[in-house]
Amino acid sequence: MNVLLVYAHPEPRSLNGVLRDFAISHLRDTGHVVEVSDLYAMGWKAGLDGADFTAHDGAARLDMVGDSLRAYQGGTLSADVLAEHEKLRRADVLILQFPLWWFSMPAMLKGWIDRVWACGFAYGVGEHSDTHWGDRYGEGVFSGKRAMLIVTAGGWDSHYGPRGINGPIEDILFPIQHGMLYYPGFEVLPPFVAYRTGRMDASRLAHTTAMLGERLDALAIAAPIPFRRQNAGDYSIPALTLREDLMPEQGGFGIHRQKA
Amino acid sequence: MNVLLVYAHPEPRSLNGVLRDFAISHLRDTGHVVEVSDLYAMGWKAGLDGADFTAHDGAARLDMVGDSLRAYQGGTLSADVLAEHEKLRRADVLILQFPLWWFSMPAMLKGWIDRVWACGFAYGVGEHSDTHWGDRYGEGVFSGKRAMLIVTAGGWDSHYGPRGINGPIEDILFPIQHGMLYYPGFEVLPPFVAYRTGRMDASRLAHTTAMLGERLDALAIAAPIPFRRQNAGDYSIPALTLREDLMPEQGGFGIHRQKA
Repeated sequence: MNVLLVYAHPEPRSLNGVLRDFAISHLRDTGHVVEVSDLYAMGWKAGLDGADFTAHDGAARLDMVGDSLRAYQGGTLSADVLAEHEKLRRADVLILQFPLWWFSMPAMLKGWIDRVWACGFAYGVGEHSDTHWGDRYGEGVFSGKRAMLIVTAGGWDSHYGPRGINGPIEDILFPIQHGMLYYPGFEVLPPFVAYRTGRMDASRLAHTTAMLGERLDALAIAAPIPFRRQNAGDYSIPALTLREDLMPEQGGFGIHRQKA
Repeated sequence: MNVLLVYAHPEPRSLNGVLRDFAISHLRDTGHVVEVSDLYAMGWKAGLDGADFTAHDGAARLDMVGDSLRAYQGGTLSADVLAEHEKLRRADVLILQFPLWWFSMPAMLKGWIDRVWACGFAYGVGEHSDTHWGDRYGEGVFSGKRAMLIVTAGGWDSHYGPRGINGPIEDILFPIQHGMLYYPGFEVLPPFVAYRTGRMDASRLAHTTAMLGERLDALAIAAPIPFRRQNAGDYSIPALTLREDLMPEQGGFGIHRQKA
Protein backbone atom coordinates (compact mmCIF):
# COMPACT_ATOMS: atom_id res chain seq x y z
CA MET A 1 0.00 0.00 0.00
CA ASN A 2 0.94 3.65 -0.25
CA VAL A 3 1.36 5.16 3.20
CA LEU A 4 1.60 8.89 3.90
CA LEU A 5 3.23 9.64 7.26
CA VAL A 6 2.69 13.20 8.47
CA TYR A 7 5.10 13.88 11.31
CA ALA A 8 5.36 16.84 13.66
CA HIS A 9 8.29 16.99 16.07
CA PRO A 10 11.14 19.52 15.99
CA GLU A 11 13.93 17.12 17.10
CA PRO A 12 14.86 14.19 14.84
CA ARG A 13 16.88 12.59 17.68
CA SER A 14 13.80 12.47 19.93
CA LEU A 15 11.76 9.40 20.80
CA ASN A 16 9.35 10.55 18.12
CA GLY A 17 12.20 10.58 15.63
CA VAL A 18 13.16 7.03 16.61
CA LEU A 19 9.58 5.81 16.24
CA ARG A 20 9.24 7.58 12.91
CA ASP A 21 12.41 6.02 11.54
CA PHE A 22 11.32 2.63 12.81
CA ALA A 23 7.89 3.00 11.20
CA ILE A 24 9.33 4.06 7.85
CA SER A 25 11.84 1.18 7.78
CA HIS A 26 9.32 -1.36 8.95
CA LEU A 27 6.72 -0.32 6.40
CA ARG A 28 9.25 -0.37 3.55
CA ASP A 29 10.65 -3.71 4.67
CA THR A 30 7.15 -5.16 4.53
CA GLY A 31 6.47 -3.99 1.00
CA HIS A 32 4.80 -0.63 1.41
CA VAL A 33 5.61 2.63 -0.32
CA VAL A 34 6.06 5.40 2.21
CA GLU A 35 5.91 9.15 1.70
CA VAL A 36 6.74 11.44 4.62
CA SER A 37 5.64 14.99 5.32
CA ASP A 38 8.04 16.07 8.07
CA LEU A 39 6.38 19.37 8.93
CA TYR A 40 9.18 20.97 10.93
CA ALA A 41 11.80 19.90 8.40
CA MET A 42 9.62 21.31 5.59
CA GLY A 43 9.20 24.63 7.41
CA TRP A 44 5.46 24.14 7.14
CA LYS A 45 3.43 27.36 7.50
CA ALA A 46 0.99 26.70 10.30
CA GLY A 47 -1.34 29.68 10.05
CA LEU A 48 -4.23 29.50 7.59
CA ASP A 49 -4.63 32.97 6.09
CA GLY A 50 -5.31 34.83 2.86
CA ALA A 51 -1.93 33.85 1.40
CA ASP A 52 -3.30 30.30 1.07
CA PHE A 53 -5.67 31.52 -1.64
CA THR A 54 -3.30 32.86 -4.28
CA ALA A 55 -6.03 34.46 -6.42
CA HIS A 56 -7.51 36.29 -3.45
CA ASP A 57 -7.31 40.08 -3.54
CA GLY A 58 -5.45 40.95 -0.36
CA ALA A 59 -7.49 44.14 0.05
CA ALA A 60 -10.81 42.28 -0.05
CA ARG A 61 -12.47 40.84 3.02
CA LEU A 62 -11.30 37.27 3.50
CA ASP A 63 -14.13 34.72 3.56
CA MET A 64 -12.59 31.62 5.12
CA VAL A 65 -15.09 29.18 3.61
CA GLY A 66 -15.89 30.90 0.31
CA ASP A 67 -12.32 31.79 -0.57
CA SER A 68 -11.18 28.29 0.35
CA LEU A 69 -13.80 26.79 -1.97
CA ARG A 70 -12.98 29.13 -4.84
CA ALA A 71 -9.26 28.46 -4.46
CA TYR A 72 -9.81 24.71 -4.37
CA GLN A 73 -12.10 24.72 -7.41
CA GLY A 74 -9.89 27.12 -9.32
CA GLY A 75 -6.67 25.28 -8.55
CA THR A 76 -5.27 28.40 -6.87
CA LEU A 77 -4.51 27.03 -3.42
CA SER A 78 -0.90 27.65 -2.46
CA ALA A 79 1.64 25.19 -3.85
CA ASP A 80 2.49 23.60 -0.50
CA VAL A 81 -1.17 22.72 0.09
CA LEU A 82 -1.60 21.35 -3.46
CA ALA A 83 1.43 19.13 -2.92
CA GLU A 84 -0.18 17.64 0.20
CA HIS A 85 -3.40 17.02 -1.74
CA GLU A 86 -1.41 15.03 -4.30
CA LYS A 87 0.24 12.97 -1.56
CA LEU A 88 -3.17 12.30 -0.02
CA ARG A 89 -4.65 11.20 -3.34
CA ARG A 90 -1.80 8.73 -3.77
CA ALA A 91 -2.10 7.37 -0.23
CA ASP A 92 -4.08 4.33 0.86
CA VAL A 93 -3.24 5.00 4.49
CA LEU A 94 -2.59 8.25 6.35
CA ILE A 95 -0.60 8.14 9.58
CA LEU A 96 -0.39 11.24 11.76
CA GLN A 97 2.48 11.02 14.24
CA PHE A 98 2.90 13.58 17.01
CA PRO A 99 3.62 14.17 20.69
CA LEU A 100 0.49 14.99 22.67
CA TRP A 101 1.02 18.62 23.65
CA TRP A 102 -1.65 20.03 25.93
CA PHE A 103 -4.05 17.22 25.13
CA SER A 104 -4.02 17.91 21.41
CA MET A 105 -1.66 17.93 18.43
CA PRO A 106 1.23 20.40 18.08
CA ALA A 107 0.30 23.63 16.29
CA MET A 108 2.37 22.61 13.27
CA LEU A 109 0.15 19.58 12.68
CA LYS A 110 -3.07 21.46 13.46
CA GLY A 111 -1.95 23.95 10.83
CA TRP A 112 -1.55 21.12 8.35
CA ILE A 113 -5.18 20.13 8.96
CA ASP A 114 -6.43 23.74 8.95
CA ARG A 115 -4.78 24.46 5.60
CA VAL A 116 -4.93 21.13 3.72
CA TRP A 117 -8.56 20.30 4.63
CA ALA A 118 -9.89 22.87 2.12
CA CYS A 119 -13.55 23.59 1.42
CA GLY A 120 -14.77 21.54 -1.53
CA PHE A 121 -12.09 18.97 -0.71
CA ALA A 122 -12.49 17.86 2.91
CA TYR A 123 -15.70 19.70 3.81
CA GLY A 124 -18.54 21.49 2.10
CA VAL A 125 -19.14 18.59 -0.28
CA GLY A 126 -22.27 16.62 -1.17
CA GLU A 127 -25.94 17.46 -1.25
CA HIS A 128 -27.84 18.77 1.74
CA SER A 129 -31.38 17.39 1.87
CA ASP A 130 -33.80 15.77 4.30
CA THR A 131 -31.92 12.48 4.05
CA HIS A 132 -28.31 13.52 3.42
CA TRP A 133 -26.35 16.28 5.10
CA GLY A 134 -23.17 16.55 3.09
CA ASP A 135 -20.65 13.84 2.33
CA ARG A 136 -19.12 13.53 5.76
CA TYR A 137 -18.79 11.25 8.78
CA GLY A 138 -18.38 8.04 6.80
CA GLU A 139 -18.39 9.57 3.31
CA GLY A 140 -16.13 12.12 1.66
CA VAL A 141 -12.96 12.56 -0.31
CA PHE A 142 -11.01 10.02 1.72
CA SER A 143 -13.57 7.20 1.49
CA GLY A 144 -11.84 3.87 1.09
CA LYS A 145 -8.68 5.10 2.80
CA ARG A 146 -7.54 4.31 6.33
CA ALA A 147 -5.95 6.52 8.96
CA MET A 148 -4.13 5.91 12.23
CA LEU A 149 -2.52 8.06 14.91
CA ILE A 150 0.88 7.41 16.49
CA VAL A 151 0.97 9.45 19.69
CA THR A 152 3.47 9.88 22.50
CA ALA A 153 2.36 11.16 25.91
CA GLY A 154 4.46 12.10 28.91
CA GLY A 155 1.80 11.10 31.42
CA TRP A 156 1.05 7.65 32.76
CA ASP A 157 -1.48 5.38 31.12
CA SER A 158 -3.67 5.47 34.24
CA HIS A 159 -3.92 9.26 33.92
CA TYR A 160 -5.52 8.66 30.52
CA GLY A 161 -7.67 5.70 31.54
CA PRO A 162 -11.46 5.56 31.89
CA ARG A 163 -11.34 7.44 35.21
CA GLY A 164 -7.97 9.17 34.85
CA ILE A 165 -7.75 12.88 35.53
CA ASN A 166 -6.75 13.83 31.98
CA GLY A 167 -9.80 12.12 30.57
CA PRO A 168 -9.87 8.87 28.59
CA ILE A 169 -7.42 8.89 25.70
CA GLU A 170 -10.16 7.90 23.24
CA ASP A 171 -12.13 10.99 24.23
CA ILE A 172 -9.09 13.28 24.12
CA LEU A 173 -8.45 12.01 20.60
CA PHE A 174 -12.12 12.13 19.51
CA PRO A 175 -11.91 15.63 17.98
CA ILE A 176 -8.99 14.35 15.88
CA GLN A 177 -10.13 10.82 15.06
CA HIS A 178 -13.83 11.58 14.56
CA GLY A 179 -13.74 15.30 13.75
CA MET A 180 -10.65 15.57 11.54
CA LEU A 181 -10.30 12.05 10.09
CA TYR A 182 -13.67 10.27 10.03
CA TYR A 183 -15.46 13.46 8.95
CA PRO A 184 -13.79 13.61 5.51
CA GLY A 185 -14.14 9.86 4.98
CA PHE A 186 -11.23 7.98 6.54
CA GLU A 187 -11.79 4.70 8.32
CA VAL A 188 -9.88 5.33 11.55
CA LEU A 189 -7.90 2.52 13.16
CA PRO A 190 -7.40 2.48 16.93
CA PRO A 191 -4.50 4.77 17.84
CA PHE A 192 -1.04 3.63 18.85
CA VAL A 193 -0.22 5.51 22.06
CA ALA A 194 3.03 5.33 24.02
CA TYR A 195 2.88 6.68 27.59
CA ARG A 196 5.44 8.00 30.06
CA THR A 197 7.78 8.81 27.26
CA GLY A 198 10.06 11.01 29.34
CA ARG A 199 11.45 7.90 30.99
CA MET A 200 11.81 5.25 28.33
CA ASP A 201 14.77 2.92 28.75
CA ALA A 202 16.09 0.55 26.08
CA SER A 203 13.92 -2.32 27.21
CA ARG A 204 10.71 -0.36 27.10
CA LEU A 205 11.69 1.19 23.77
CA ALA A 206 12.22 -2.27 22.32
CA HIS A 207 8.80 -3.31 23.58
CA THR A 208 7.25 -0.13 22.17
CA THR A 209 8.71 -0.59 18.68
CA ALA A 210 7.69 -4.25 18.70
CA MET A 211 4.10 -3.27 19.51
CA LEU A 212 4.17 -0.56 16.87
CA GLY A 213 5.47 -3.06 14.33
CA GLU A 214 2.52 -5.34 15.04
CA ARG A 215 0.12 -2.46 14.51
CA LEU A 216 1.79 -1.51 11.24
CA ASP A 217 1.59 -5.11 10.05
CA ALA A 218 -2.18 -4.96 10.59
CA LEU A 219 -2.81 -1.66 8.77
CA ALA A 220 -4.76 -3.34 5.99
CA ILE A 221 -6.81 -5.70 8.13
CA ALA A 222 -7.35 -4.13 11.57
CA ALA A 223 -10.96 -3.30 12.41
CA PRO A 224 -11.55 0.45 12.39
CA ILE A 225 -13.20 2.33 15.24
CA PRO A 226 -16.93 1.72 14.61
CA PHE A 227 -18.01 5.35 14.34
CA ARG A 228 -21.60 5.75 13.16
CA ARG A 229 -22.23 6.92 9.60
CA GLN A 230 -24.09 10.21 9.50
CA ASN A 231 -26.35 9.52 6.52
CA ALA A 232 -27.16 5.85 7.10
CA GLY A 233 -30.18 6.26 9.35
CA ASP A 234 -28.77 6.62 12.87
CA TYR A 235 -29.15 10.41 12.98
CA SER A 236 -32.10 12.75 12.54
CA ILE A 237 -31.44 15.16 9.67
CA PRO A 238 -30.83 18.12 9.78
CA ALA A 239 -30.64 18.24 13.60
CA LEU A 240 -27.94 15.53 13.38
CA THR A 241 -28.82 14.15 16.78
CA LEU A 242 -28.60 10.43 17.44
CA ARG A 243 -32.01 8.72 17.09
CA GLU A 244 -33.78 8.52 20.44
CA ASP A 245 -34.04 4.73 20.39
CA LEU A 246 -30.26 4.29 20.02
CA MET A 247 -28.45 4.31 23.37
CA PRO A 248 -31.36 6.20 24.91
CA GLU A 249 -30.69 8.68 27.73
CA GLN A 250 -26.96 8.56 27.03
CA GLY A 251 -24.68 11.34 25.83
CA GLY A 252 -21.01 12.11 25.31
CA PHE A 253 -18.62 11.02 22.60
CA GLY A 254 -19.20 7.32 23.24
CA ILE A 255 -22.66 7.21 21.67
CA HIS A 256 -21.14 7.92 18.27
CA ARG A 257 -19.43 4.54 18.32
CA GLN A 258 -21.52 1.45 17.63
CA LYS A 259 -21.42 -1.09 20.43
CA ALA A 260 -19.43 -4.21 19.67
CA MET B 1 -9.91 44.18 36.33
CA ASN B 2 -7.11 43.59 33.87
CA VAL B 3 -8.29 41.45 30.97
CA LEU B 4 -5.99 39.81 28.43
CA LEU B 5 -7.80 38.91 25.20
CA VAL B 6 -5.89 36.48 22.99
CA TYR B 7 -7.47 36.49 19.57
CA ALA B 8 -6.84 34.26 16.55
CA HIS B 9 -8.57 35.08 13.27
CA PRO B 10 -6.88 36.28 10.08
CA GLU B 11 -9.64 38.69 8.95
CA PRO B 12 -10.44 41.74 11.12
CA ARG B 13 -13.69 42.33 9.17
CA SER B 14 -14.99 38.87 10.07
CA LEU B 15 -17.68 38.08 12.62
CA ASN B 16 -14.84 37.27 14.99
CA GLY B 17 -13.42 40.74 14.40
CA VAL B 18 -16.80 42.29 15.16
CA LEU B 19 -17.14 40.30 18.38
CA ARG B 20 -13.58 41.14 19.39
CA ASP B 21 -14.13 44.88 18.86
CA PHE B 22 -17.41 44.68 20.75
CA ALA B 23 -15.77 42.84 23.65
CA ILE B 24 -12.90 45.32 23.89
CA SER B 25 -15.23 48.35 23.83
CA HIS B 26 -17.66 46.81 26.26
CA LEU B 27 -14.96 45.86 28.73
CA ARG B 28 -13.35 49.30 28.58
CA ASP B 29 -16.73 51.03 28.89
CA THR B 30 -17.39 49.05 32.04
CA GLY B 31 -14.13 50.01 33.69
CA HIS B 32 -11.75 47.22 32.78
CA VAL B 33 -8.24 47.52 31.40
CA VAL B 34 -7.86 45.41 28.26
CA GLU B 35 -4.73 44.12 26.59
CA VAL B 36 -5.01 42.27 23.28
CA SER B 37 -2.73 39.69 21.73
CA ASP B 38 -3.95 39.58 18.12
CA LEU B 39 -1.92 36.61 16.99
CA TYR B 40 -2.29 36.99 13.22
CA ALA B 41 -1.64 40.74 13.40
CA MET B 42 1.44 40.08 15.54
CA GLY B 43 2.75 37.51 13.07
CA TRP B 44 2.89 35.03 15.94
CA LYS B 45 5.24 32.08 15.36
CA ALA B 46 3.12 28.99 15.86
CA GLY B 47 5.73 26.24 15.91
CA LEU B 48 7.47 25.48 19.20
CA ASP B 49 11.08 24.64 18.37
CA GLY B 50 14.67 25.15 19.50
CA ALA B 51 14.59 28.85 18.57
CA ASP B 52 12.29 29.38 21.56
CA PHE B 53 15.20 28.61 23.87
CA THR B 54 17.71 31.27 22.97
CA ALA B 55 20.55 29.77 25.01
CA HIS B 56 20.10 26.34 23.45
CA ASP B 57 22.95 25.09 21.32
CA GLY B 58 21.35 24.42 17.95
CA ALA B 59 23.63 21.45 17.36
CA ALA B 60 22.62 19.74 20.61
CA ARG B 61 19.70 17.39 20.90
CA LEU B 62 16.60 19.39 21.79
CA ASP B 63 14.91 18.23 25.01
CA MET B 64 11.43 19.74 24.87
CA VAL B 65 10.83 19.63 28.62
CA GLY B 66 14.35 20.16 29.95
CA ASP B 67 15.28 22.95 27.55
CA SER B 68 11.97 24.67 28.21
CA LEU B 69 12.61 24.53 31.97
CA ARG B 70 16.17 25.80 31.66
CA ALA B 71 15.10 28.64 29.38
CA TYR B 72 12.28 29.62 31.73
CA GLN B 73 14.51 29.55 34.80
CA GLY B 74 17.37 31.32 33.04
CA GLY B 75 15.18 34.01 31.51
CA THR B 76 16.27 32.95 28.03
CA LEU B 77 12.92 32.15 26.47
CA SER B 78 12.43 34.11 23.26
CA ALA B 79 11.28 37.71 23.64
CA ASP B 80 7.80 37.16 22.20
CA VAL B 81 7.09 34.44 24.78
CA LEU B 82 8.44 36.55 27.64
CA ALA B 83 6.17 39.41 26.57
CA GLU B 84 3.14 37.09 26.82
CA HIS B 85 4.26 35.98 30.29
CA GLU B 86 4.27 39.61 31.38
CA LYS B 87 0.78 40.16 29.98
CA LEU B 88 -0.42 37.05 31.80
CA ARG B 89 1.08 38.15 35.11
CA ARG B 90 -0.74 41.48 34.80
CA ALA B 91 -4.06 39.86 33.85
CA ASP B 92 -6.87 38.98 36.25
CA VAL B 93 -8.84 37.38 33.42
CA LEU B 94 -7.71 35.60 30.27
CA ILE B 95 -10.10 35.38 27.32
CA LEU B 96 -9.24 33.16 24.37
CA GLN B 97 -11.29 34.05 21.30
CA PHE B 98 -11.24 31.89 18.19
CA PRO B 99 -13.30 30.22 15.47
CA LEU B 100 -13.71 26.48 16.06
CA TRP B 101 -11.69 24.93 13.23
CA TRP B 102 -11.89 21.16 13.04
CA PHE B 103 -13.25 20.89 16.55
CA SER B 104 -10.29 22.66 18.13
CA MET B 105 -8.53 26.01 18.10
CA PRO B 106 -6.72 27.38 15.04
CA ALA B 107 -3.04 26.42 14.83
CA MET B 108 -2.01 30.00 15.60
CA LEU B 109 -3.67 29.84 19.01
CA LYS B 110 -2.50 26.30 19.71
CA GLY B 111 1.00 27.58 19.00
CA TRP B 112 0.47 30.31 21.57
CA ILE B 113 -0.33 27.65 24.17
CA ASP B 114 2.48 25.33 23.05
CA ARG B 115 5.07 28.09 23.32
CA VAL B 116 3.85 30.29 26.20
CA TRP B 117 2.95 27.41 28.58
CA ALA B 118 6.64 26.78 29.37
CA CYS B 119 7.98 24.13 31.76
CA GLY B 120 8.49 25.62 35.22
CA PHE B 121 5.81 28.17 34.42
CA ALA B 122 2.61 26.35 33.39
CA TYR B 123 3.69 22.75 34.05
CA GLY B 124 6.40 20.85 35.83
CA VAL B 125 5.87 22.82 39.04
CA GLY B 126 5.26 21.74 42.63
CA GLU B 127 6.26 18.71 44.64
CA HIS B 128 5.45 15.16 43.63
CA SER B 129 4.64 12.97 46.64
CA ASP B 130 2.05 10.49 47.84
CA THR B 131 -0.42 13.32 48.50
CA HIS B 132 0.45 15.94 45.91
CA TRP B 133 1.24 15.42 42.23
CA GLY B 134 2.47 18.78 41.04
CA ASP B 135 0.73 22.13 41.25
CA ARG B 136 -1.90 21.54 38.60
CA TYR B 137 -5.62 21.05 38.05
CA GLY B 138 -6.74 23.65 40.54
CA GLU B 139 -3.31 24.92 41.54
CA GLY B 140 -0.53 26.53 39.54
CA VAL B 141 0.85 29.79 38.25
CA PHE B 142 -2.58 31.13 37.29
CA SER B 143 -4.30 30.43 40.62
CA GLY B 144 -6.68 33.24 41.48
CA LYS B 145 -7.18 34.20 37.84
CA ARG B 146 -10.19 33.44 35.68
CA ALA B 147 -10.42 32.37 32.05
CA MET B 148 -13.19 32.17 29.47
CA LEU B 149 -13.50 31.11 25.84
CA ILE B 150 -15.33 33.05 23.13
CA VAL B 151 -15.93 30.60 20.29
CA THR B 152 -17.68 30.77 16.94
CA ALA B 153 -18.89 27.60 15.20
CA GLY B 154 -20.33 27.18 11.74
CA GLY B 155 -22.52 24.23 12.71
CA TRP B 156 -25.91 24.28 14.38
CA ASP B 157 -26.29 24.15 18.12
CA SER B 158 -28.08 20.80 17.90
CA HIS B 159 -25.01 19.33 16.18
CA TYR B 160 -23.07 20.20 19.34
CA GLY B 161 -25.78 19.18 21.82
CA PRO B 162 -25.75 16.23 24.22
CA ARG B 163 -26.56 13.78 21.39
CA GLY B 164 -25.34 15.83 18.41
CA ILE B 165 -23.03 14.18 15.90
CA ASN B 166 -20.07 16.49 16.59
CA GLY B 167 -20.15 15.63 20.27
CA PRO B 168 -21.27 17.90 23.12
CA ILE B 169 -19.57 21.28 22.99
CA GLU B 170 -18.44 20.97 26.62
CA ASP B 171 -16.62 17.75 25.73
CA ILE B 172 -15.09 19.20 22.54
CA LEU B 173 -13.77 22.06 24.64
CA PHE B 174 -12.64 19.87 27.56
CA PRO B 175 -9.03 19.49 26.34
CA ILE B 176 -8.87 23.29 26.20
CA GLN B 177 -10.85 24.26 29.29
CA HIS B 178 -9.63 21.48 31.58
CA GLY B 179 -6.33 20.55 29.93
CA MET B 180 -4.94 23.94 28.90
CA LEU B 181 -6.64 26.34 31.34
CA TYR B 182 -7.64 24.56 34.55
CA TYR B 183 -4.38 22.57 34.56
CA PRO B 184 -2.15 25.62 35.19
CA GLY B 185 -4.57 27.09 37.72
CA PHE B 186 -7.26 29.16 36.01
CA GLU B 187 -10.83 29.04 37.22
CA VAL B 188 -12.66 28.48 33.94
CA LEU B 189 -16.00 30.17 33.30
CA PRO B 190 -18.56 28.52 31.02
CA PRO B 191 -17.71 29.32 27.39
CA PHE B 192 -19.55 31.79 25.20
CA VAL B 193 -20.33 29.95 21.97
CA ALA B 194 -22.05 31.39 18.89
CA TYR B 195 -23.36 28.81 16.41
CA ARG B 196 -24.25 28.88 12.71
CA THR B 197 -22.00 31.83 12.20
CA GLY B 198 -21.93 31.54 8.42
CA ARG B 199 -25.46 32.93 8.29
CA MET B 200 -25.72 35.65 10.90
CA ASP B 201 -28.01 38.54 9.98
CA ALA B 202 -28.12 41.89 11.79
CA SER B 203 -30.85 40.79 14.17
CA ARG B 204 -29.01 37.67 15.30
CA LEU B 205 -25.75 39.59 15.54
CA ALA B 206 -27.42 42.13 17.83
CA HIS B 207 -28.73 39.29 19.99
CA THR B 208 -25.28 37.66 20.03
CA THR B 209 -23.46 40.81 21.14
CA ALA B 210 -26.11 41.47 23.79
CA MET B 211 -25.60 37.98 25.20
CA LEU B 212 -21.83 38.38 25.07
CA GLY B 213 -22.15 41.70 26.90
CA GLU B 214 -24.05 40.00 29.70
CA ARG B 215 -21.34 37.37 30.00
CA LEU B 216 -18.60 40.01 30.11
CA ASP B 217 -20.50 41.90 32.80
CA ALA B 218 -20.39 38.74 34.93
CA LEU B 219 -16.68 37.97 34.51
CA ALA B 220 -15.92 38.67 38.17
CA ILE B 221 -18.93 36.90 39.67
CA ALA B 222 -19.97 34.02 37.38
CA ALA B 223 -19.58 30.55 38.86
CA PRO B 224 -16.71 28.67 37.23
CA ILE B 225 -17.03 25.16 35.81
CA PRO B 226 -16.74 22.95 38.93
CA PHE B 227 -13.74 20.89 37.82
CA ARG B 228 -12.35 18.70 40.58
CA ARG B 229 -9.07 19.69 42.23
CA GLN B 230 -6.38 17.08 41.74
CA ASN B 231 -4.73 17.28 45.16
CA ALA B 232 -7.79 17.77 47.38
CA GLY B 233 -8.70 14.14 47.96
CA ASP B 234 -10.86 13.16 44.99
CA TYR B 235 -8.08 11.37 43.14
CA SER B 236 -5.78 8.48 44.04
CA ILE B 237 -2.15 9.58 43.82
CA PRO B 238 -0.07 8.84 41.75
CA ALA B 239 -2.52 6.87 39.54
CA LEU B 240 -4.62 10.04 39.35
CA THR B 241 -7.83 8.10 38.92
CA LEU B 242 -11.05 9.35 40.45
CA ARG B 243 -11.80 7.66 43.79
CA GLU B 244 -13.99 4.61 43.32
CA ASP B 245 -16.77 5.91 45.56
CA LEU B 246 -17.19 9.09 43.50
CA MET B 247 -19.56 8.64 40.56
CA PRO B 248 -18.90 4.89 40.63
CA GLU B 249 -18.97 2.90 37.39
CA GLN B 250 -18.93 6.12 35.36
CA GLY B 251 -16.27 7.39 32.98
CA GLY B 252 -15.68 10.10 30.42
CA PHE B 253 -14.91 13.78 30.84
CA GLY B 254 -18.05 14.44 32.90
CA ILE B 255 -16.79 12.73 36.05
CA HIS B 256 -14.14 15.45 36.45
CA ARG B 257 -16.84 18.01 37.13
CA GLN B 258 -18.52 18.01 40.54
CA LYS B 259 -22.27 17.54 40.38
CA ALA B 260 -24.28 20.68 41.14
